[in-house]
Amino acid sequence: MTPLVSIIMGSTSDLPVMEKAAHLLDEMQVPFEMNALSAHRTPQEVEQFAMRAESRGLRVIIAAAGMAAALPGVIAANTALPVIGVPVKGLLDGLDALLSIVQMPPGIPVATVGVNAAQNAALLAVQILSLADEELAARFREYKSSLKEKIVRANAELAGLDNFKYKTN
Amino acid sequence: MTPLVSIIMGSTSDLPVMEKAAHLLDEMQVPFEMNALSAHRTPQEVEQFAMRAESRGLRVIIAAAGMAAALPGVIAANTALPVIGVPVKGLLDGLDALLSIVQMPPGIPVATVGVNAAQNAALLAVQILSLADEELAARFREYKSSLKEKIVRANAELAGLDNFKYKTN
Amino acid sequence: MTPLVSIIMGSTSDLPVMEKAAHLLDEMQVPFEMNALSAHRTPQEVEQFAMRAESRGLRVIIAAAGMAAALPGVIAANTALPVIGVPVKGLLDGLDALLSIVQMPPGIPVATVGVNAAQNAALLAVQILSLADEELAARFREYKSSLKEKIVRANAELAGLDNFKYKTN
Amino acid sequence: MTPLVSIIMGSTSDLPVMEKAAHLLDEMQVPFEMNALSAHRTPQEVEQFAMRAESRGLRVIIAAAGMAAALPGVIAANTALPVIGVPVKGLLDGLDALLSIVQMPPGIPVATVGVNAAQNAALLAVQILSLADEELAARFREYKSSLKEKIVRANAELAGLDNFKYKTN
Amino acid sequence: MTPLVSIIMGSTSDLPVMEKAAHLLDEMQVPFEMNALSAHRTPQEVEQFAMRAESRGLRVIIAAAGMAAALPGVIAANTALPVIGVPVKGLLDGLDALLSIVQMPPGIPVATVGVNAAQNAALLAVQILSLADEELAARFREYKSSLKEKIVRANAELAGLDNFKYKTN
Amino acid sequence: MTPLVSIIMGSTSDLPVMEKAAHLLDEMQVPFEMNALSAHRTPQEVEQFAMRAESRGLRVIIAAAGMAAALPGVIAANTALPVIGVPVKGLLDGLDALLSIVQMPPGIPVATVGVNAAQNAALLAVQILSLADEELAARFREYKSSLKEKIVRANAELAGLDNFKYKTN
Amino acid sequence: MTPLVSIIMGSTSDLPVMEKAAHLLDEMQVPFEMNALSAHRTPQEVEQFAMRAESRGLRVIIAAAGMAAALPGVIAANTALPVIGVPVKGLLDGLDALLSIVQMPPGIPVATVGVNAAQNAALLAVQILSLADEELAARFREYKSSLKEKIVRANAELAGLDNFKYKTN
Amino acid sequence: MTPLVSIIMGSTSDLPVMEKAAHLLDEMQVPFEMNALSAHRTPQEVEQFAMRAESRGLRVIIAAAGMAAALPGVIAANTALPVIGVPVKGLLDGLDALLSIVQMPPGIPVATVGVNAAQNAALLAVQILSLADEELAARFREYKSSLKEKIVRANAELAGLDNFKYKTN
Repeated sequence: MTPLVSIIMGSTSDLPVMEKAAHLLDEMQVPFEMNALSAHRTPQEVEQFAMRAESRGLRVIIAAAGMAAALPGVIAANTALPVIGVPVKGLLDGLDALLSIVQMPPGIPVATVGVNAAQNAALLAVQILSLADEELAARFREYKSSLKEKIVRANAELAGLDNFKYKTN
Repeated sequence: MTPLVSIIMGSTSDLPVMEKAAHLLDEMQVPFEMNALSAHRTPQEVEQFAMRAESRGLRVIIAAAGMAAALPGVIAANTALPVIGVPVKGLLDGLDALLSIVQMPPGIPVATVGVNAAQNAALLAVQILSLADEELAARFREYKSSLKEKIVRANAELAGLDNFKYKTN
Repeated sequence: MTPLVSIIMGSTSDLPVMEKAAHLLDEMQVPFEMNALSAHRTPQEVEQFAMRAESRGLRVIIAAAGMAAALPGVIAANTALPVIGVPVKGLLDGLDALLSIVQMPPGIPVATVGVNAAQNAALLAVQILSLADEELAARFREYKSSLKEKIVRANAELAGLDNFKYKTN
Repeated sequence: MTPLVSIIMGSTSDLPVMEKAAHLLDEMQVPFEMNALSAHRTPQEVEQFAMRAESRGLRVIIAAAGMAAALPGVIAANTALPVIGVPVKGLLDGLDALLSIVQMPPGIPVATVGVNAAQNAALLAVQILSLADEELAARFREYKSSLKEKIVRANAELAGLDNFKYKTN
Repeated sequence: MTPLVSIIMGSTSDLPVMEKAAHLLDEMQVPFEMNALSAHRTPQEVEQFAMRAESRGLRVIIAAAGMAAALPGVIAANTALPVIGVPVKGLLDGLDALLSIVQMPPGIPVATVGVNAAQNAALLAVQILSLADEELAARFREYKSSLKEKIVRANAELAGLDNFKYKTN
Repeated sequence: MTPLVSIIMGSTSDLPVMEKAAHLLDEMQVPFEMNALSAHRTPQEVEQFAMRAESRGLRVIIAAAGMAAALPGVIAANTALPVIGVPVKGLLDGLDALLSIVQMPPGIPVATVGVNAAQNAALLAVQILSLADEELAARFREYKSSLKEKIVRANAELAGLDNFKYKTN
Repeated sequence: MTPLVSIIMGSTSDLPVMEKAAHLLDEMQVPFEMNALSAHRTPQEVEQFAMRAESRGLRVIIAAAGMAAALPGVIAANTALPVIGVPVKGLLDGLDALLSIVQMPPGIPVATVGVNAAQNAALLAVQILSLADEELAARFREYKSSLKEKIVRANAELAGLDNFKYKTN
Repeated sequence: MTPLVSIIMGSTSDLPVMEKAAHLLDEMQVPFEMNALSAHRTPQEVEQFAMRAESRGLRVIIAAAGMAAALPGVIAANTALPVIGVPVKGLLDGLDALLSIVQMPPGIPVATVGVNAAQNAALLAVQILSLADEELAARFREYKSSLKEKIVRANAELAGLDNFKYKTN
């Protein structure tokens, strides 16, 4: 099975964050791969990976990095595929990673999601792939409507709170 | 008993913060309701809630949200009632939520209180309702003067500190 | 005619910002007054103003201040009326004023609007007064629906752009 | 010609920023439309637009907004299409808009680009559409390689600087 | 013994921070008092305290506050005595309190020290009092030179580290 | 006439900011001197200046610096006199200078005023000197009460605004 | 003459900032080259440049970039030479570039100077080269002592100010 | 053995951070020394240290400091040697220290590394020393290539994850 999405992270210390992306893709039945690559420690490997990504059959790349987070941008520089960037929280609450990823120069966009938002990165990949895959699109719509159920359960929980005298619902 | 205030939160994970608003309204004998609604997960429900709020008899809405906190603004967009926004602290110390709530465009204000300041949101609702409810106004004035008692107790505590030689009060 | 809203600013240098609040109240036919008072230069006058505000017939106070913006909070401390705070942009892009106004301690809320958002402060006052004034409520609803007309005009403007070949609307 | 991309902005004051997106799509021969819609002033229209977008044949939505920039998130909440968010610089250097757009809750991603980066938003749309359009993919690759020519010209310019004695290239 | 320095804090929750100021003044044999007063909860008491401070014999006031920290500024507004402000760390790493205290308008300075820097506030008071008290000046100079001893001890500790092969001191 | 206050700045580019301090001291009849000294360009001169300051008869030092503003702290390190720090706005809105000056380590306080707040630095010096100079104290009290006159004039100006129909004062 | 220092910038729009580095190296008689290279637009060229830099005889690389400033880090990743990073001010006051450059992962340092501080980058290169070049070291020491002359001239200017009555120097 | 690198820290509380620099230098067989010196508590000692550093045979100085981190700049002001600054995280996430160190005035650069990045400071020193020491250069190149092994191990770890069904590598 050829992977359609590649999840790249700088080191396995980002794994607890990025696992959520893997689980989401798994749930959506999207073939994916996970690799550790560093824009600063293994720059040639990053470049080779990015340049070969399209011909290997990949359609979307999710790149996670913290601090001076060059990885998503460098991959975007070396491929025509859409690249989704995930800022990983480090010392400065993730603001350093967020700015390092989102503020790309004209010509080389990175589709940035929120700090540590690995799950949203995977969903964005699913949305993009859904444009050409009707079955995946159906799974995504189902997922999206399932989000409302959490709210239904939350409301039931709130309605059950009975330590208030003037609460009316 | 028709609720006058509606406390809306994005998920029950905001409950530990928003409970203080509920307790304050309870103490002030203001009928209220609590609901979980999400501007991003249940947008139609949010819109319906906001559009029907006034005719249901609600007078003030307290909306709490974190991160890209669109909930208070979206509710304000769909009702003529005053909306009080509570930024809930998430990853970036609540600054993301604060800016997402307070920086509304001309025409659609949100009355924003401090990060996690659910109690103040409830008090603001009480102040607004007090304009047309003399009994509530009396309860609020009583509450406000009770705040000074904490300071009196605090001073007694400070006066009791006796491990200083040059302390004179 | 007794003023219902009082617009307080620290100095007349805030007038270009706060005029928008005055114009909005004027348009909404809400009697108002404007005064310059400073929490740091005329503290007794601020206190007297705040303590007498309710008995003078005022219902809402709009207080604008920049930098270490104590004015809204100090007024809120001395009155039971709802106080709307307007952070005025100074040296630090208004972030100093915003934090100085919105981060009030438990017990003394200030209903904060965006940086320089005088118009929204006035609208918030109108929303609050509308709770007990059906005619004003009607004017406010009219105002709110008029906001959509700007968008209609904006769309007409966008549709008229004809320097694109692949633009289809 | 059915538009594939919709560029949405809150008001025509965002047009000077968003024109770059339109020009890029034009250059890439991607049919597009431009509309003004506001999450806060025309919420029902935003919702209707978002819910009908997919059936109208749109594939990607670019949404630009400033300050408490709820527009991209609200659109994303109401459609399964990928949404690209462009934070527009306002009072706080665009940081308020950036955080309001990028920090979306789990389940509803917005593919955020840099502050005022309309051109990159359009390129991201092109990259996504290229996954199912080989001709567009070819045009995009051509565009991407043309970026290097700017650098070549820049180097020629630098080499021509002759007011240095120890400069060797 | 008439107190020369008054340490004011908004609530006893600031005591763990402000105790360091008390200990320093005690060590320097400067008579002082400690009180809890709140610019927002007990505004009249703050004003009375500030207006009577000089005639009671106080020479310097140390005021500590967090969040929208109006206390130091309001005290400074009501007295001619020098006021030292201590920003207390709350939700936003103390940046809200720092900006609320230091960014005073022209005419009403507050001598601000670092976040939670109660000890430095006390030392600043000692420096000011030393201008007219030669014995206190001597104690302060002694204190200041004692700071070097910590460095001497620190160097001894560093010299004792023997788990390095190439370390030469 | 021996100077009591020394105004130190890193370069004459800070003069437009610091002139206000000079004018205020002049108005208050406080003998002062102005010097340019740089913690980074003339470190020995700074040290010598600071170490000799007290014996030369100086009582307060005002030190202004921008960016990595070490000057106030280094002077404070070398003298027992109170040092007032003025952060001068540079590239980062003065936040770099503010943090570089106010966040001093335990033991070496700098009495920091707001960004570019040279006038307040001078007033703080006046307040400190007033503790031992009754005539100066009288001049300062006169100055302080004169601040209210500005507000009186401002109110007259506001009362004169007659382009509002519902304005009542 | 083989260049010892290479000044790299992302585009010629950075030239007004980076010229100061060129002038300083020229004045110090250090052979240098200037090139435009972009980590995002010409990634292969950046890599090749960095990998060949040492064998070409270069000893220090100065890399300037703005926004998501990956250039200095990517060069550092591909060479053993010391790399000096210059954050160039763009939309967010240069904070995005500063954090993107300075917050490098363990193993790949970039010697970062201040925002737009091209001159300091050149001086840092001179300091490094001086370790093995006694003549350059002499020129640098001369330069450093010349910095004091500016202060001398500044003091003369300050002494010449005669519009103060109580100024004593 | 004469030390080539001196690691200076403000107090031994910085030791847990700076130990990594010591271990790296040890591993690279670079003779070094460690000292505690404070720009604010022991200013004369800092000055003497800096002025004598070059003649003692030192080639690079690593200076670590937190908060209003003047130490690296003051050392740089008093020596011609390259100075590497390490901002140490304190109350404000290290941003205060970072800005205090990196924003040096023209003429006195400090080669700043990331917050708490002691290891990178040591590596930068190694890179600088390697320019004149071929054996050290070889050790550094070996170190640099060893960084890739971590990535290889990380990839093996990722490949071993078998709780995903659609994971393909």
